[in-house]
Amino acid sequence: MTDFAVWSRAIQARMETALAACLPDATLAPQRLHAAMRYVTLGGGKRVRPMLAFAAGEAVNADMDRVEAAACAVELIHVYSLTHDDLPCMDDDDLRRGKPTCHVEYDEATALLVGDALQSLAFEVLAEGGGSAGMLRQLARAAGSRGMCGGQAVDLASTGQSLDLAELEFMHIHKTGALIQAAVLLGALADDALADDARHRLERYARCIGLAFQVMDDVLDAETDTATLGKTAGKDAAQGKATYLTLMSAKEARAYADELTSEALAQLEPFGARGQRLAEIARFIVERRY
Amino acid sequence: MTDFAVWSRAIQARMETALAACLPDATLAPQRLHAAMRYVTLGGGKRVRPMLAFAAGEAVNADMDRVEAAACAVELIHVYSLTHDDLPCMDDDDLRRGKPTCHVEYDEATALLVGDALQSLAFEVLAEGGGSAGMLRQLARAAGSRGMCGGQAVDLASTGQSLDLAELEFMHIHKTGALIQAAVLLGALADDALADDARHRLERYARCIGLAFQVMDDVLDAETDTATLGKTAGKDAAQGKATYLTLMSAKEARAYADELTSEALAQLEPFGARGQRLAEIARFIVERRY
Repeated sequence: MTDFAVWSRAIQARMETALAACLPDATLAPQRLHAAMRYVTLGGGKRVRPMLAFAAGEAVNADMDRVEAAACAVELIHVYSLTHDDLPCMDDDDLRRGKPTCHVEYDEATALLVGDALQSLAFEVLAEGGGSAGMLRQLARAAGSRGMCGGQAVDLASTGQSLDLAELEFMHIHKTGALIQAAVLLGALADDALADDARHRLERYARCIGLAFQVMDDVLDAETDTATLGKTAGKDAAQGKATYLTLMSAKEARAYADELTSEALAQLEPFGARGQRLAEIARFIVERRY
Repeated sequence: MTDFAVWSRAIQARMETALAACLPDATLAPQRLHAAMRYVTLGGGKRVRPMLAFAAGEAVNADMDRVEAAACAVELIHVYSLTHDDLPCMDDDDLRRGKPTCHVEYDEATALLVGDALQSLAFEVLAEGGGSAGMLRQLARAAGSRGMCGGQAVDLASTGQSLDLAELEFMHIHKTGALIQAAVLLGALADDALADDARHRLERYARCIGLAFQVMDDVLDAETDTATLGKTAGKDAAQGKATYLTLMSAKEARAYADELTSEALAQLEPFGARGQRLAEIARFIVERRY
């Protein structure tokens, strides 16, 4: 089995090609919109969600073309949410993945339409790539008001408020957790015969690593400089947003992330060697530097 | 066969119930987001697209529960697009369906998330209501950058520019035409056995009435007061946007709408009595007062 670093670069390269192919060409009308959609989607991003989809697909031996369509769909939803999240009426951020954000490079109206069109494209790509109605429903639910969008609404409402751990986790389970869980589940649901027990174990795995990811995001946001991060560092704290570090020390946060990772790894036991990539991603999440 | 006015009120009532049931309850967290989603969707709207879906479903004898899911999905996409279209960075409008627009009644960030979440909900409702992958793909394509969103981008780019008839129609075929066509096609595709000839005829019907609808919108926008219209009248002309009335007189525009309607009606011949509702909608579009 190849090294995780080699595997993850291969997934990143595969995703760059796959996303470039599913995005409309920038020579196609309306050109400015299509150029902006490519600008926000291509040439960057850790592609953590696609890695999860591919790793989950490997764990259950799913059809990898179908997994690729699911990975593209989830990543398109993720990129749309970043584009809208950066808008002046939301987080008002200028920098993303080391580049000017969409509304800075283009304009606000274009950034709004880019996000809207990327969301539509996610469902189109999944439907065209052999996604079942069940997979489409899963993605829609994860993206919507009882998933990612709902988490962003809670995030907005809680700015300047002090949250307890339960409230903070409710927000994260929706804001970032829902889509991370969708990435894992869609990769696994690419196998039509996915067993209930496997499904539930993957759901628990995803829930744990989703939270660990967010805990580490807060730690890295506080400890890392803007250049390394590729986005504005220390912003959440400056905006009075609740983070794990307003509730615990960085050391405690790292220990909590480790605990969540152990719980995630425990879910993978029945998958044996086929669960290896999912295990590596769980470890990567707590060990990453940006 | 009941009178068209009676039928259309029955569809409006059925849609109000169906949409109320598929929108998350306002007591469910995040409450403010869910209340705002219900605010923009319920209690108003002509429901032209749902009428088209039901009429097309009747024309091919499709399963009406599946048609209802398609009608809800198309209407949710329409309402999301209105919500985003009214935002300050787009048309900056204060009034919609006789009520304050979402960002005025709530705030900009909420209006952004309402639109985003309604788009996700559209796909969720269609997938849950028995929509096939083909129906989901059709809706996604109609909503995206080569459909509705693309038309809005062209609309933005052309503000203050003079367009010729071909350019104006390119914009409308995307901005409003794509979703009107999706309404008709999804209603018909609810019948899995839809024949190619019927499909092509319905596509041509939808293209004609989509344009006729837009021609009449421009005429009514110029000739009707804000109170009757339920949205700010004369706004397009004031913003320097190209309309049919910058290219022809109101009399010529009405004649053009009549011509498009005749072409639409001609497509319905093979459907006989079952195409009656589609014919009535075509006539309603040119005869409506707001």
